[in-house]
Amino acid sequence: MIQTPYLLFLGDAPDQLAAKVAQGIRDWRPENAVGQFRLPGCGADVGLTDMTLEQAKAAGAKTLVIGVANRGGIISAAWKEVLVRALQMGFDLASGLHNLLRDEDDLVAAARVAGMTLHDVRIPSVAYPIANGIKRTGKRCLAIGTDCSAGKMYTGLSMDAEMQARGLKTTFRPTGQTGILITGGGVPLDAVIADFMAGAVEYLTPDNDPDHWDHIEGQGSLYHVSYSGVTMALIHGGQPDALILCHEPTRTHMRGLPGYALPTLEALRDTALPLARIANPACQVAGVSINTKALGEDAAKTLLEDTSARLGLPATDPFRFGAAPLVDALVAL
Amino acid sequence: MIQTPYLLFLGDAPDQLAAKVAQGIRDWRPENAVGQFRLPGCGADVGLTDMTLEQAKAAGAKTLVIGVANRGGIISAAWKEVLVRALQMGFDLASGLHNLLRDEDDLVAAARVAGMTLHDVRIPSVAYPIANGIKRTGKRCLAIGTDCSAGKMYTGLSMDAEMQARGLKTTFRPTGQTGILITGGGVPLDAVIADFMAGAVEYLTPDNDPDHWDHIEGQGSLYHVSYSGVTMALIHGGQPDALILCHEPTRTHMRGLPGYALPTLEALRDTALPLARIANPACQVAGVSINTKALGEDAAKTLLEDTSARLGLPATDPFRFGAAPLVDALVAL
Repeated sequence: MIQTPYLLFLGDAPDQLAAKVAQGIRDWRPENAVGQFRLPGCGADVGLTDMTLEQAKAAGAKTLVIGVANRGGIISAAWKEVLVRALQMGFDLASGLHNLLRDEDDLVAAARVAGMTLHDVRIPSVAYPIANGIKRTGKRCLAIGTDCSAGKMYTGLSMDAEMQARGLKTTFRPTGQTGILITGGGVPLDAVIADFMAGAVEYLTPDNDPDHWDHIEGQGSLYHVSYSGVTMALIHGGQPDALILCHEPTRTHMRGLPGYALPTLEALRDTALPLARIANPACQVAGVSINTKALGEDAAKTLLEDTSARLGLPATDPFRFGAAPLVDALVAL
Repeated sequence: MIQTPYLLFLGDAPDQLAAKVAQGIRDWRPENAVGQFRLPGCGADVGLTDMTLEQAKAAGAKTLVIGVANRGGIISAAWKEVLVRALQMGFDLASGLHNLLRDEDDLVAAARVAGMTLHDVRIPSVAYPIANGIKRTGKRCLAIGTDCSAGKMYTGLSMDAEMQARGLKTTFRPTGQTGILITGGGVPLDAVIADFMAGAVEYLTPDNDPDHWDHIEGQGSLYHVSYSGVTMALIHGGQPDALILCHEPTRTHMRGLPGYALPTLEALRDTALPLARIANPACQVAGVSINTKALGEDAAKTLLEDTSARLGLPATDPFRFGAAPLVDALVAL
């Protein structure tokens, strides 16, 4: 686990989009961040108080989280100066960058001298077991998509937030680096060795109270040939009681695969449910989550109503209109 | 690639079963082995000429292959003496053991001094790409199982051998350590990082002549919750034109999963074919391979006839009765 609260490092992010990790923390776990740190020329602002390292330290921050993508895969000299100083001042560092903190000799040396920790959340830090398939107590909900990047993480976070607001027992279970940085822990599933994928998901979602729900972050898609194996491991390791079908309605082909059309929501349902029932015969498809960002409000509502009628399932854009219909469906299962 | 021909090291194998890697090489690529090397007390014999290291060297052997499982996961002192001497004499070493040659300091030192190579075939030696899903030329056949260890490797090797005997263009493509040692190359798929599984299978089965068949070694099972993600990556990375359904008829539950019943061959067909058609819309189920080892000859033939009639597909035990019906089906596709 990464120690909270954080100071969010935005560096010299050229624009808001580059700071999406920081924005995710701000949106979903604002209590995890005391402020933001920006370098001259930074074009991003996630709306937290700008702080120096000293101010953040005084405010109780434990970890400096790199909340921004770096340009060209290089940790620049301007970043380095801040990161080394943060280590010297007693901050841990956490990063989801492709190039690793642990591969930077000066950061490793500074962390060793200061006795601080470098968290590279893309790399598993646990020797996960092989999945044993034994039924676990508690309930689990898995978001699956017609495609990658269809809103699965936001769907799970929205449902978790709605359940928290209702005083229900709930945990969001991250399986990718952004989710791990948002919550402070999880499994970087796409970096796990093949034989241990399903076991890593079992490890992530252990026995729990009978009325507790895990919201497992989905990855990939059964229909995305590059990553479908990861999705399959989530379905079998997660033993979901409920599936949420996620869709982005403006895609013209599968992400990164120009020759591949998206499946319909019906096809996804009919493919995924029998596979899920191998691990959990009680599994149900509970609802549909559509990312309507590209649509006007009327068009979005019409699409959601039509989809709900067509599939006989609640349908919402949880980020835009709230996750209440999906949580109602879980509670009613 | 591992250099051939081999000398097969049987060590102090307690029985024939412990030498199954060596037996596989003897059964399927006898031209890859000049002889066998046994220590005092060895209870296995794969029927090759017993040779000293010196005799094998004179016969042209390039690599000493550890063709036996070791006891307790330890490379013993008795083995070490032979392995170090082999390196000093100019043999490479190849092993599929869980404990790695590269983790043994004395072997690493001896290999460095002699300029020889240690092949640990459980560990990927290539940085595989992410799958791109682009249609490749040539034909591919994938064996899939109702369970793990249902005869998928032997099915692929049998079909490859039958096609070779007919003068057809064919390659067996190993995805596990035994297959890799048998042929000298392949992808240890269960040790590949999740994001690169399907890409590793694409790498293993590149563009080829339009009438060339790759026989891809299957792994796991869509119905085995511990490993189904690996199977999924084979189905999407392999883009098979043909699936062979493999089954072991005496199992009472999924291997290592007491709570899980085996699917029927019909269920496997109906689950796997739509998934395979995501990557290759032309994919067909071409036949059934049943491991009848536990059955008498009459019972085996009756089971195969009944299965063939029930599914409307050729059915054989390729190791016992030959792979001709399966190859006929491929040629007719």
